[in-house]
Parts: sequence; C-alpha cells; structure tokens
Amino acid sequence: MKTLCFGEIMLRLTPPDGLRLVQTHAFEVTFGGSEANVAVSLTQLGLDAAFLTRVPDSELGRAALGSIARYGVETQACIFGGDRLGLYFLEKGAGLRGSKILYDRAHSGMYSLTPKMIDWQKSLKNVSWLHWSGITPAISQSAADATLEALAIAKKLNIKISCDLNYREKLWQYSKKPNEIMENLLELTDVVLGDVNAFDLYFGLRGTDETSLLNNVSARFPQLQQIAMTSREGLSASNNTYKGILWDKNQVFLSKTYELSDMVDRIGGGDAFMAGLIFGLQNTQYSSQDTIEFAVAASALKHYTQGDYNLSTEKEVLALLNGNSGGKVSR
Amino acid sequence: MKTLCFGEIMLRLTPPDGLRLVQTHAFEVTFGGSEANVAVSLTQLGLDAAFLTRVPDSELGRAALGSIARYGVETQACIFGGDRLGLYFLEKGAGLRGSKILYDRAHSGMYSLTPKMIDWQKSLKNVSWLHWSGITPAISQSAADATLEALAIAKKLNIKISCDLNYREKLWQYSKKPNEIMENLLELTDVVLGDVNAFDLYFGLRGTDETSLLNNVSARFPQLQQIAMTSREGLSASNNTYKGILWDKNQVFLSKTYELSDMVDRIGGGDAFMAGLIFGLQNTQYSSQDTIEFAVAASALKHYTQGDYNLSTEKEVLALLNGNSGGKVSR
Amino acid sequence: MKTLCFGEIMLRLTPPDGLRLVQTHAFEVTFGGSEANVAVSLTQLGLDAAFLTRVPDSELGRAALGSIARYGVETQACIFGGDRLGLYFLEKGAGLRGSKILYDRAHSGMYSLTPKMIDWQKSLKNVSWLHWSGITPAISQSAADATLEALAIAKKLNIKISCDLNYREKLWQYSKKPNEIMENLLELTDVVLGDVNAFDLYFGLRGTDETSLLNNVSARFPQLQQIAMTSREGLSASNNTYKGILWDKNQVFLSKTYELSDMVDRIGGGDAFMAGLIFGLQNTQYSSQDTIEFAVAASALKHYTQGDYNLSTEKEVLALLNGNSGGKVSR
Amino acid sequence: MKTLCFGEIMLRLTPPDGLRLVQTHAFEVTFGGSEANVAVSLTQLGLDAAFLTRVPDSELGRAALGSIARYGVETQACIFGGDRLGLYFLEKGAGLRGSKILYDRAHSGMYSLTPKMIDWQKSLKNVSWLHWSGITPAISQSAADATLEALAIAKKLNIKISCDLNYREKLWQYSKKPNEIMENLLELTDVVLGDVNAFDLYFGLRGTDETSLLNNVSARFPQLQQIAMTSREGLSASNNTYKGILWDKNQVFLSKTYELSDMVDRIGGGDAFMAGLIFGLQNTQYSSQDTIEFAVAASALKHYTQGDYNLSTEKEVLALLNGNSGGKVSR
Amino acid sequence: MKTLCFGEIMLRLTPPDGLRLVQTHAFEVTFGGSEANVAVSLTQLGLDAAFLTRVPDSELGRAALGSIARYGVETQACIFGGDRLGLYFLEKGAGLRGSKILYDRAHSGMYSLTPKMIDWQKSLKNVSWLHWSGITPAISQSAADATLEALAIAKKLNIKISCDLNYREKLWQYSKKPNEIMENLLELTDVVLGDVNAFDLYFGLRGTDETSLLNNVSARFPQLQQIAMTSREGLSASNNTYKGILWDKNQVFLSKTYELSDMVDRIGGGDAFMAGLIFGLQNTQYSSQDTIEFAVAASALKHYTQGDYNLSTEKEVLALLNGNSGGKVSR
Amino acid sequence: MKTLCFGEIMLRLTPPDGLRLVQTHAFEVTFGGSEANVAVSLTQLGLDAAFLTRVPDSELGRAALGSIARYGVETQACIFGGDRLGLYFLEKGAGLRGSKILYDRAHSGMYSLTPKMIDWQKSLKNVSWLHWSGITPAISQSAADATLEALAIAKKLNIKISCDLNYREKLWQYSKKPNEIMENLLELTDVVLGDVNAFDLYFGLRGTDETSLLNNVSARFPQLQQIAMTSREGLSASNNTYKGILWDKNQVFLSKTYELSDMVDRIGGGDAFMAGLIFGLQNTQYSSQDTIEFAVAASALKHYTQGDYNLSTEKEVLALLNGNSGGKVSR
Repeated sequence: MKTLCFGEIMLRLTPPDGLRLVQTHAFEVTFGGSEANVAVSLTQLGLDAAFLTRVPDSELGRAALGSIARYGVETQACIFGGDRLGLYFLEKGAGLRGSKILYDRAHSGMYSLTPKMIDWQKSLKNVSWLHWSGITPAISQSAADATLEALAIAKKLNIKISCDLNYREKLWQYSKKPNEIMENLLELTDVVLGDVNAFDLYFGLRGTDETSLLNNVSARFPQLQQIAMTSREGLSASNNTYKGILWDKNQVFLSKTYELSDMVDRIGGGDAFMAGLIFGLQNTQYSSQDTIEFAVAASALKHYTQGDYNLSTEKEVLALLNGNSGGKVSR
Repeated sequence: MKTLCFGEIMLRLTPPDGLRLVQTHAFEVTFGGSEANVAVSLTQLGLDAAFLTRVPDSELGRAALGSIARYGVETQACIFGGDRLGLYFLEKGAGLRGSKILYDRAHSGMYSLTPKMIDWQKSLKNVSWLHWSGITPAISQSAADATLEALAIAKKLNIKISCDLNYREKLWQYSKKPNEIMENLLELTDVVLGDVNAFDLYFGLRGTDETSLLNNVSARFPQLQQIAMTSREGLSASNNTYKGILWDKNQVFLSKTYELSDMVDRIGGGDAFMAGLIFGLQNTQYSSQDTIEFAVAASALKHYTQGDYNLSTEKEVLALLNGNSGGKVSR
Repeated sequence: MKTLCFGEIMLRLTPPDGLRLVQTHAFEVTFGGSEANVAVSLTQLGLDAAFLTRVPDSELGRAALGSIARYGVETQACIFGGDRLGLYFLEKGAGLRGSKILYDRAHSGMYSLTPKMIDWQKSLKNVSWLHWSGITPAISQSAADATLEALAIAKKLNIKISCDLNYREKLWQYSKKPNEIMENLLELTDVVLGDVNAFDLYFGLRGTDETSLLNNVSARFPQLQQIAMTSREGLSASNNTYKGILWDKNQVFLSKTYELSDMVDRIGGGDAFMAGLIFGLQNTQYSSQDTIEFAVAASALKHYTQGDYNLSTEKEVLALLNGNSGGKVSR
Repeated sequence: MKTLCFGEIMLRLTPPDGLRLVQTHAFEVTFGGSEANVAVSLTQLGLDAAFLTRVPDSELGRAALGSIARYGVETQACIFGGDRLGLYFLEKGAGLRGSKILYDRAHSGMYSLTPKMIDWQKSLKNVSWLHWSGITPAISQSAADATLEALAIAKKLNIKISCDLNYREKLWQYSKKPNEIMENLLELTDVVLGDVNAFDLYFGLRGTDETSLLNNVSARFPQLQQIAMTSREGLSASNNTYKGILWDKNQVFLSKTYELSDMVDRIGGGDAFMAGLIFGLQNTQYSSQDTIEFAVAASALKHYTQGDYNLSTEKEVLALLNGNSGGKVSR
Repeated sequence: MKTLCFGEIMLRLTPPDGLRLVQTHAFEVTFGGSEANVAVSLTQLGLDAAFLTRVPDSELGRAALGSIARYGVETQACIFGGDRLGLYFLEKGAGLRGSKILYDRAHSGMYSLTPKMIDWQKSLKNVSWLHWSGITPAISQSAADATLEALAIAKKLNIKISCDLNYREKLWQYSKKPNEIMENLLELTDVVLGDVNAFDLYFGLRGTDETSLLNNVSARFPQLQQIAMTSREGLSASNNTYKGILWDKNQVFLSKTYELSDMVDRIGGGDAFMAGLIFGLQNTQYSSQDTIEFAVAASALKHYTQGDYNLSTEKEVLALLNGNSGGKVSR
Repeated sequence: MKTLCFGEIMLRLTPPDGLRLVQTHAFEVTFGGSEANVAVSLTQLGLDAAFLTRVPDSELGRAALGSIARYGVETQACIFGGDRLGLYFLEKGAGLRGSKILYDRAHSGMYSLTPKMIDWQKSLKNVSWLHWSGITPAISQSAADATLEALAIAKKLNIKISCDLNYREKLWQYSKKPNEIMENLLELTDVVLGDVNAFDLYFGLRGTDETSLLNNVSARFPQLQQIAMTSREGLSASNNTYKGILWDKNQVFLSKTYELSDMVDRIGGGDAFMAGLIFGLQNTQYSSQDTIEFAVAASALKHYTQGDYNLSTEKEVLALLNGNSGGKVSR
C-alpha cells in the first residue's frame, strides 16, 4: 500500500551562486511542486509513494517525471497533455536580501486537466493515502473539478486523505473565490496542514491563540482527524526559527523550536514537514508528540538541502531528533 | 540616423556541453529573437541600432533588454507589459543528431501588444531604416495590427523598410492565414529576405530556379527594391554549406558558397545575414556583389559564435572576405 | 512483458571540457555499464525494461539505480550488498588523442554476488527477454555461477536470452579461462552480439570473411537464432566509421555504413546497438534488414549523446533512417 | 537631467566558490570601479546616470562598458585609449579569513588620461550632478589634472559635485602627496563621503568624536553642503556591523546600525552608500534622516549581491527600511 | 633540513555547491590525506617538507603527487605501485545537516606496502623530523610493519618523530587490535597529537580532566616530549568551537578558544593544527604558549579554506593571532 | 643532468566553451609561456627539467610556479620580483573564426630582470642543456642583457644551448632592433627552431625553398648543429596541417605531414615540438629522422590537449608514431 500525491510539478530555474535574476548567465535545473516534493520525501523516508500529474509529452515533461522517478517515486499513473510545463524562477536570497519566486506556470498540463481525464479507479489501486494541496484547485476551475472528482472516489474507497492548504495569492485567477471551492474539498479531507494566514484567507477562521484557532478549524470541519500548523519567524534570508503544532483528536502537541541558521534552500520546507507528518501518522509506533517532532525535524533538515526535494532519510531525521545537530562529520 | 528593429526578444535556455534536454542539470542563459539579433549585429558592425519590443517589467524583461544594451543597442523606446517573457529551449545537436528548439513563447508581451500602445512618432525619430520580420504578425492578430500600424507610419516618414520572412509553422495559431496578413505588410516593404519555402508558404510563389522565383516575387511585389535569399544544405548538425543570392533591381548576384564545418551555434545565422545585408545596402561604397558577399560572410562567422547574437565586427567580416579563414592565431 | 538486463552498473567519472585526468579539477558524474545502458536505451525506444544488479546500500548505490529509474527503467528487483560501487574514469580523447578508460571496479557488489542471492523466480516474473553480457562472468567465479543460474532458470521459463560478448581483457582475473566459462553460458543463449576479436578470444572462432565467421559461430552454437556483429574503423578519436551485420537463420544482412564525424561520446555505442537489435527482433513488423539498419542507426545517434546512455527515441532513430542526418533544426 | 560618474572601470577576476588565488582553476568575470558602481546603483534606483572613462578600444574595454550599459547606464561619452584595462583580483574571504584584493591597474587608460582629451562641454550636457572619487587623482598627475579640469568646468555650469574620498594607499605613486592634490579638488565639491581614516590621511582632519570631526571638515571646507561618513566594524569576513552619519548644513543625522551577517560580497558597499546618498539628496521629498537611512539600507543590501554593482531597486531598499529583513520569500 | 611526512594520499571527490551525493552531477577533484595535508601546511608556513607514499603509476597517482608538488612539497622519494589510488567522497554538510565521508580506500598502494619497499636510508637523507599518523598502521599489517621499520631507522638517525593518532574506526580490519600495533610505534615517537577518544580507544588512557589525561599519557609513554590535544564542540555543520592544549615537559598550556562560524571546509583542520605544532616546536623563538596558540590559529584558518590543504601562510596566521579576525579587506 | 628552460611564465585567461572575450562571464585559469611549456613537455616525456624565471612573490607568482611544479618541473632556481605577473587572454576560435590572443605582459618580473640578479653558476649546476627563446630578449634591454649573460656562462660550462626564435611582433618595443640583439645570442646557440618568417624577420635570411633557407641559416650561423623548422597550413581554426623539417649537420630530414582536424587547443604546439626535438637529440638511440618524426608527433598531440602544456607521455607519442591515430579507446 502506498501514498499517492496528486498535483503539479514544475521546472525550477535557479541562478547559481546566489546570483540575481538580472545578472545570471545560467540556471540550475531542478524540478518541484508541493505534492511532488511530498512524494520524494516519503520515498526517502522509506515509504512507497506515487505521484500523479498531467504534463506535456515533451523532453521537459519527461524530465520532470524522471526527476522524481530517480528517487523511487512511481510515476506510471501520470498522464500526458497540456500546452506547456509550468516553471518558476527562484532568486535565492541571502542575509537581508530575501528570496524571490517568479512563477510562470499558467497554461500548464494541470491547468487544462478536466474530470474524466484520469482513470481514478486504476490510479488509486493499492493506494491507502491520497495527498493533495490547495494549489491544484487554485489553478483553474477544471483542475478544481478534477480534484473534487479524485477526493470523492478516494473517499468511497476508504482512502485516507490529506491536504496542505498552501495558499498562493497569485493563483485563483478564475471566477470563483477560494472558499467557494475549498470548503467542499476540505470536507472530504482527514488531515490538514495550514498556517495562520491560510485558515483565515480560505475560510475566515481565526483564533486568539493557536489552540483556539485549531479548535475553530475542528469545529468548522469536524471530520478532520488531525490539524497541523507550522510557524516560521524569518529573521533574515539565511536565518529563521521554525516549529510545528499538531491538533490530534482534541489534543494539541507542540514541537521543539529550531533555529535555522546558515540556511541553504528553504523552498519545500513545508512539504518536507507534510511528508514527515504523513510518515508519523502512518507509523503505528508513533505518538502524536513523536509525529510532530519528526515532521519538524524532517523539515528542518530540508532547509539544508539544495532543490525542492528533501533527501533526508529516516535515519538522518532520527539523528537530529537524538541531538546530532550537524556538528560531527560522519565517517 | 539609425536602424530600428521591431520584434520579440526571448529568454533562451540551452543545456551546456551539448547535453540533451532530458538529462541536463543546467541551462546557459542568453537572450535572442530574430529582430533583436539583427540589432546587435548592426552595432557590432559599427552602425547605430535600436530595438523596440514589449516585455514585462520584471527582472527577466529587464535582463532581456540589458542583453542587447550591453552591445550598444538603444532600448529606450521599449515598452513594458504582458504576462510573461517568451522563452525557448535549445537542445544543441552534433553530428547526426540535429538541434531541436522547444518554443514556450505564448502569452508574451508582444502577444498582447495592440496598436496605439507604442508611440511610433517618437519611436521613429532619427530612424532611417525599420526592420521587422514575419514572426511578429504570426504571434497574434493584435501584434499583426501593430505591425501594420508601424509600417504605415514609417512609410509616411520615408523610412526604408526591410523584412525577414522567417516562416514559423508553429505560430499562426489565430484565425487568419499567413497570406491574409503578410500581403499587406510586404506591400509596404522595400527589402525582403526569404528562402524557397517562405515565398511558397506565405504567397504561393515558386520558380523553376532561384532566378525565376526572384523574378516572380518581384512581379508580385513590384515595390521591392532588393530581394535576398539564403540557401543552406545541412549535411549534419556540425556541417552545413551556406550561400546567398541577391536580386537587386532586376539583376541577380550570387555569393561564394561556404563550407561550415565544426559549427558551434547556428541559431541566428539568418539574422546575421540580414544585418550584413542592411550593412551593405546602407553602405554607398558597396556594389550589389559586395553586399551579398558581406552578408554571407557575416552569417558564416555567426555559426562560430555562441548565442543568438553575431558579435563579429566589420573588420572580422572583411578578414574572412579577404581569405583569412580562421587558420591563423591573431596575436 | 518486459526485457530484463542483468549486469553491473558503475559510477563514471569524466573530466569536463576534454581535460586529461592529470589536469582536471572536476569530474562529471554519470553512471553506466553495458547492460544498464541497454535497459535505458530500450525504455527510450518505448519498450518496458528492468535492470537487475547488486550494489551497496549507500548514497552511491542508490544514485546509480536512480540514474536509470530516471529514464523509466524498473529497478525494484535490484539487491543491495557488496563493499563498493565499481567506478571508472573516462578521459575523453579528441582528434589524434584517443580516449582512455581507467577501470576501478574490483570488489564491487557484483564481484561478491553468489548464486541464490537473487530470487530469480520473482525477478523473472513478467519477463520475456533476458539480456546479459560477457562482463559479468569475467568479474568473479561466483558472478559467473550466478549468471549460469540465471540463464538456466530463464531457459526453463522459456524466456528469450541475448548476450553481448563484450570481451574485457583486464577482467578475467580469477583462475578460469574465458572459454571455460563462456561456452556453457552461450549454449543457453538465443541471440549474440560480438565482433571479430570477441569470437576469436573467447572461442577461437575465426573466418576468412565475416560471413564465414558467422557461419562458424552458428556451427559451434547451433541453438543461436541471431548472431550480430558490429564493425568500427577508428580514423581518430572524433571520427569513426561504423556498420553492423546480422546473421539471421542462415542469412546475412549488412547495414549501411555510417561516417561518424564530430563524435561527442562513443562509450555505450555497442550497447545502443544491442538495444536496437532487441527492439528490432521484438518488433514483428521488422524484417531482418530493418532490424540491422535500426540497430546501427540507433548506435550512430549514441555517438552524439553525452554519457553512457543512448537517449534517442524510436522517432529519432527513424528520422535518421529516413535521411535526416542532423542538418535541420527541428522547431 | 542625469548624474555623470567619472572614474575608472576595471576587470574584476574572482575565484569561484571562495577558492584562494593560489588554488583556483577559474575566475568569475565581472567589472567594477568605485564611480561605475555608483552609476549602476543609480539606474537601478530609477535615476538617469552616465559614466565617463577612458579604456582601450579592445574586446576588454568594450566588455567593461557593456557591463554597465547592460544596467541602463549611458556610456556614449566614454573615450578610447590607453595601454590596457586595469584589473583586480579579488580573493573572497570567509569567517576568520579576510578578503584580499590584488590590484593590477597601472598603465590603464585613465593613467594616461590628460586634460583636453575629454570634451567636457559635450559630456556635461544634460548633467545636473557630477560624481568623482579620490581614486582618479591618485592614479597619475595627468589624471589628477583632468579631474581638476572637469570640476572647474562643471562648477561653471552650476552642476552639483560629489566626491567619495576613497583613500587607496597603494596608489599615489607619483611625486605629489595626496593633500597637495586633493585640497584643490575638494574645494570645488559640494558633497563628500569619507571615513575617519580618509579625512585624516588626506587632510589631517580628526575629531574627538564623529560630530567634532564633521565640524572640523566643514570648517576646513566651508563650501561643503553635506558630509557623510560610513562606519564599519569587521567582526569577521562574513559578519560586519555598518552604519552611516550625515552632516547636513550643521546638523548631524545618524542611521540605524545594521548587523551584516552571512555577507556575500562586500566590495562596492561604500559605492552603494554613495548612490543612496545621491538618490536621497536628489529626492526633494526626503529629509536628511530619510537620506542617511536610505543610503545605509541600500549599502546593506549590496553586501548580499554578487559583484561590485548594487542591483537593488528603490522598492527593495524601501522594503528593508520598512522592516522586511529578508526573512520572507517574495512570491 | 626538512620534515618528511609519511602516509597515504587519496583522491577526494566533493559534490559542488553543497549538493548531496545522491543528487550531484559533478565532483570537485582535490586530493588529501592526513600526512600529505601536514606537508602542504608546512611549505605554506615557509618550511621545507617532503612527502613519502606509494601510489599507482597512473594518471591518478601522478595527479595526487602533483597536487602537493604544486605547493612546494618534495615528492621525489615516493614509490609507485599498488592496485588503485584510495579515494573518498565528501558530502559537505551545512547547518543542521552534518558532513559525511564515504571512504573507498581499500586495496590502495599503501595497503600493499611492505617493509623493504622503501629505501629509508635514502628517503631520510636531510630529514630532521619524521611525521606519521595512526592511519597508516590501520590500513594493513604490512603497512604497519613498514611504519615500524621507518620509525626504527629514523630513531637511529636521531630524527625527531611526531604522530597524529587519527583514530579511524572503519579501518583496522585486519587481525590485530589497534593497541597491539600502536604501542610499539608510539614508544618510538617524541611528539603526539590526539583527542580524548583517541587516547582511550588506542590505549585505554583516560583522565578526570584534560590535565590528568595528559599526565596519564606521559606516564604510559614517558619518552614523549610533547603531547597535544585538540578539542572541538560541534554546534552545527557550519559552527564549531575549537581550542588546543599542549603538555610540554610536565607543563600544560591552553590556547584561546575560537568560535568557528560560517565554516567553509573543516576537513584537514587537525592536520593544519599538527603542522602548526611542528612549526612552533621547530621554531626556537617560540614558547610553549606561542606554539599552541599558533597551532590553533593555523587550524582555525583552515576551516575557511576549500580542500584538505591549509594554504595559510605564516603571515596570515600571525595576523589572526594579532587580532585580525577577517573583518578587513586587505588591499 | 637536466634541461633548464629560461623565460617568462604568464597567467593565461581563456573564456570557457569557446565564448568570445566580449561575452564571457568567466575565465579558465591556466599558465604558460614558451619556455615553461617546453619544460613541462620534457618532464612528461620522462626527462628531468627545471625552469628559471622571475615573478612577483604574490599568490599569482606562486601559482604560476606551482602550475609547472605540479608536473615535476623543478622551480627552486626561480627568483622573485617585479611589478606584476604577465598575463594573456586567449579567445579560442572555431571553424572560420580564428583564435585571438590579447597580451597584457608589460612590466612583468622578466621585464625588469637585469644581469646579476640570477646566480647562474648555481642555477646551471647539474644542467646539461639550456633552452631559451626569442621572447625574452624582446621584452626589454635588460632582459636581453640577462639572456646574453646566461648564454655566455652556459657556453663556458659546456652546456648545450637551444633556442626557439619565437618572433613576437608586438614585443621589441625598446630602442633596439631584433637583429641587433639576436645575432649575438644566436651565435652562442647550438640548436635553433624557427619558421620562414622568423628567419627573415630577425636576420633577413630567406631561401628559394626550405633546404636553401636552412643552408643559408647554417652559412650565417656556422656553429649551429641542428636547425629545425615547422610548417603549418591553417585551413580553419579547427583544422590545420602540420609538419617539421630538421637540418642536421648538412642533411635535411622531412617529417610526415599531419592533418590536424577537430583541434582543441593549438597554443603551445611549437613548444611541444621544441620539447620533442630536445628529447630526440638527447636520445642517443634516435636517428635524425626519428627525432623530427618524434617532435612533430609530440606537437600533433598537443593540439588535442587543453592549456599551453603538452601532457603527452613518451608512450603516447610512440603510439601515434606507430599508427594509433586516436580511433581506439584504451581500456
């Protein structure tokens, strides 16, 4: 049994050596996208994972799928189509100069995805967990429709469903407002990850503190079994603090707070957390506290890995949890 | 007085070291576009040139303009707007494996250019020659309309007008057929560059040989003062032969044929020819034969220069014309 | 049904920019090995392929498997173990300076592979064709034993078996002579690829010409259904000629001869041929002549692709067969 | 109306990846020079700027000018000549290992610049502000003479004049002492930037504290309208503190102090400050306090930008002033 | 008179830009090994040094020797032989992700080194100091024997002998236990460097504090003239604290503690300390306190230098000792 | 006994990937100079060689010496001094675009070398052959004087002396004409290498054919024992033909002519020839014909090696002489 992640994968173009976009003579080529990032994290943690998307049948589309197949993610269910592969430019910041992302993802394969294109019965075979994020329904009405189709079928198949809210302000360009779309989708979901902004912007849910917010979310979406939040304080482009909170069946569990100095690449940090969360929740040995600690530690390590994908193994996450904070050379 | 080139400029992404798109870990970043390439060639040959386009006011848009300003092309007339900077991926071939271009240029600033956006009176100040190509009207109806607007105003201002037909099969996606658009535009043009395919595909003009074709073009567009053609035989991705023909007021002038072995980058070869043609025609000392020889030699050197832009100087083109075929180290 | 390739995969370390080993400041990192190369070629041609090897469960072992999973090759059957990942250094030649390979492959996972380590019944499920090469039995006695085990089981399962003789002089360091080992193995094989040297060095088989040699091979191994040979003339490191011959049930078919000028990377050329041969033989529409032409054209394209793997698609091979020798830019 | 920066531009050669000069296999190629850096900063902040220098008419001279034209700086006034383009090698430090600059700038075009070479009447057309630095008069007697010529003409044209003292110990190799030359020049100047060392070394001006020093400078050069100082504390090569002080018509304004951790490239930090100062002083909406804060914030951002040039925009500087210290990814 | 360092040199393969081993497309090529690192440090500090090892007579073996000859280390005494050059892969950590070394050094030239292979009388000519480390006897019994041979001869020649204990858990694969081998060797040694773990693991020597440990070492090996220890606290992969202690004829000298933030490359830090120690002990002007301070400062600078070798000069170490902690650009 | 090469070594800056100087973002860093190139070639061929020059005691000066020490050339005799390290920019051509060298070597250490600076008695110890070239006396009067000093002392010590005329038009900037200086120097020389131009430009010596020219050279400089000439025809930057002629005590020996297609780096080709010539003349087993064939084959291989230095070994040169023209992969 495996976890299926459903969403978009993009070509990521990053100037080398911290160069700015206006001055660069080259781009590093990697690939990423919230749900693909989760899938790669899961295989590196030792779980079976598959990814499902729609990309053009071009060198770029195949390279995108290859970039996750390389790490053991199944891609056989993916379908081909669409005008182009979405892409994004990442100008990495440092110190007082923040990072900047320039999206160029319109008109991608997922943009023109419509219900019925994917054979969900086949794609969900051997799947015990389905993961989606708030990005897909934000791309286009038809992508939102396809997401709803997927969740409805998964639900019937008793597949567990998780969602990372992932609010992206520059998407949601079609006629619907986020909450018109997201409410139905979240009602089919069992586990959700968000942050203070996302709960407010999607659903108008707020709280006087984190616990009250989580309780409000639970009240509004009573089917949710777990609600997770991450909280990041950005001191500079190189230095953040990071922690997580897990609401698990009416109890709240708070993780250790990490100081993330000398960060290398923070893109995909939330996805690494999501994968750690799924890992913990699928692990019957893990308490809720174990789960939130694992998710945050996995995410912390992502900040020190180039590219969107967290390549940390379970063993490496456990080492950090056990106090090995990187100061020792492993020989 | 200067030459104004009007058209699109794109981000060009080329895998390094002859890698294929599916395997590359990086892209070299350059910029190019037929008309921008002509403008850079002209400044390198010692002429004043300006470029006029519409790009988004983003790091990428500004980098694109910077890439030609760096070589002395004026860019002050450019306007900002549009959803994205067009881009193209170039997989460089070698030997028996041909080069491949993957365009990703839809929805660019030039795509949504409409008449009246550009202040042509101001943009054409101090301009004695206007150059356009068949690419711009192929992008969208409104871009075609803007081209017509430009040519009409230039005509009234007695500005000489040249066109490179540049047939691009994958463009022309809107409702009009190429000839519906191109006929009006070419009738306002004084100098045209094409090849056997372009004349046929745009206007259905053919000939039993090159001279008869040129005469047919002249018969159909009698206002044309010069008609140039290039002819390339592709033995392999590394080895072509190349020559040019110039019809100049009823006489036909044939250039030397170059064997282009060990080619480095053939993209922009036609634009380098076009610039050489403009250079020759603007040079009152040049005979028609001088002009076609210069244009072909300039283009030949482009094939040994990385990127879209021909960086060859007048002195370097003359050296090749005088028999220095690269075998000597200049110290 | 798929083709299973069984053999070793190594880390390949190549100095960039044609630098020599003594002067290089960097290595390009790719992976390769004769049988892995065949597997990747097959998936790029559109066939299902799997690869089976034994590598250490280290970052390097996993990176090696990832390098072929990235191109769609199944790697689930691979087993982990051994002291190290074999590696080889490739100093790419140019012109009059030949290429040089420095092997450092002793004590690899395949070196200490023994019979029973691999669950062949499971590994051969859904397999219709098994491919091996002369390299594996040359590594160690136990690897030779494991090869024999594989072939015997495959034979019983009615799986078609192909072999590339791939004579490597510097291997065969254990007590047995090549022919003591190879005869038994080849007797279980249906399709073989070799060259004049290999048939002689392994089995003492020669001929006055290619046809007589092929007949002698057939006489000695009467169960062989197809015997293929490649023939390469090396004019320089950048320029070879290349052709193939196929003996198919008593008839001999000769391919076109290619002039391979401006070569980029000739390593894996024979493996690309082998994959083309398998592709042709599995294609019921292909005549013997079609098959040998396809195999040679596929191999020709490999010489213009960086790395061990031939990334050419069926469409690209057919384009070359149809006369597109790389001279045209595909837009 | 625009700002004209007059000075030297050099080729900068920087080992990649923090390599030391003795071990590097490559250099990154950028260009820079105090006054050119100011000009680029100004255009990035949205002002019109031009640069005036003398470089050889070689590929390197033209590349130097192209490096600033690329960012919108006018270079038409530049003149060609001299034996060579000055250059400098930058070994970037890290942590406890400081950065090292090896100048190789003797015998450049500016070295042999003499009065009358530049047509100042033409060069100062449309110029409202002229910026020079203490480097130019330090190069040679004739360069000092040309600087005096420039200032005298600018003065007559009522152009505002600013100077960055930029004391360089290894220059001043000709017979005159700095103060013999600099006094006359500074007396023609309206705005000056220095630090504690520069005021002492050039003019013997000191103070018990910064305010008293500034008052002493004003007393000695009563025509100065603004006197600015920067103050840097170098904890390590990666970590400095930085602040600025502005004396503006008898009042002293002190900026916020920035902690510059994780610095990327501190070369050009002072020039970025100078450009911010000019920007503030030209901005009628800016109070003196606004100006010094803007200048220091602009300079702070420079420390996180590769190369000599500060590529920060007005919007980016304002964001830092408004508290966005780089911790947020801009999407 | 010179210092001879005896040991192994390996090819070091480091992914660029902090990439992880599973994702890298390239390796930086450097060389290193504890004793070779000491030799290079010594020449950079201005002393004469030679290195003695056994490597294959291949491009790689010669490149390894060239990598130290380049910095002035004599290599004429080296002998050629063995199956392969040892190598190691270094995955550089950052922040919370620690660095990882993957050794692949078995079967190297030093592995099969046996007594009598080296002409010690000749190799020790003009040698006043011999340096070895605990790595060589850990490689193989015969390498241990050769070490003993060397020490015995050196002893007779009145050559001073130093040792860095350098405990490597993954070596010591042959039948002997470390202490069976190391005791004899250390009894021939005059100066030893270790840390708390090494003294315990090799000899079972512990102490309630550092001084008592040092006294216990001295009691067990009374011929030792100096015993040095380094102590590192690893806060993260980018941030360590570092100090040293020197026991010199019954007195203990403690160095300043350095905060090593923003570290660039910590491999070879101990070897840089060892070289600094030898430098101090050979310098008759240096007190014991001077020596330990110098050794630690030299080592501190190594952490900011790419590659195994410390390229810091005496002048640079003295600058750090004098308080220049990198914050100033040297022009 | 060894060969001492006396001359200048420079930093060579080459844009990567065939980029032109005006467009490059990086330089490859190598070092070279005619006489240093000869020294490296000699050690690679297995001979003992030393190099003697004067460079500044800077990181760059030391890196230059390290670049040859790395290949086994002795550098202990070198002296330190002078204002700067000479450098040159190499823009590599391809096909019809020729290579271009931009020298920036004025004011180097060799420029200000004067007699008595070098202790020739010491430097010539154990030297049996001294090699110089026409470059050194062209740099400055004092460098010419120092050359004369060297030759005179070497002559007395019965050291054999060779010279490569190496005419460089852009040097010879001081008051003397080449022949005023070179005649005295050549009269002290035993073996000379030149080409048709050099003999004419230095000494006005010409001939109706090569043999008559060689006889004329011998008549003018009767002490010469061998006179060698190389002859190159440059078809393009990638394709030359190359041959050599040796006049040896009144007999003329002509080498095979090589077609040098697909050249990689022709700089240093003549120096590789010179080293091959010295190798042959020092080899008592070699006939005159053997010598000229060896020299030309060594030079041919240089054209396929990056950088100034020929890294080919004796074995590799012999392989080419024996017909291995690079077409075979050596495994």
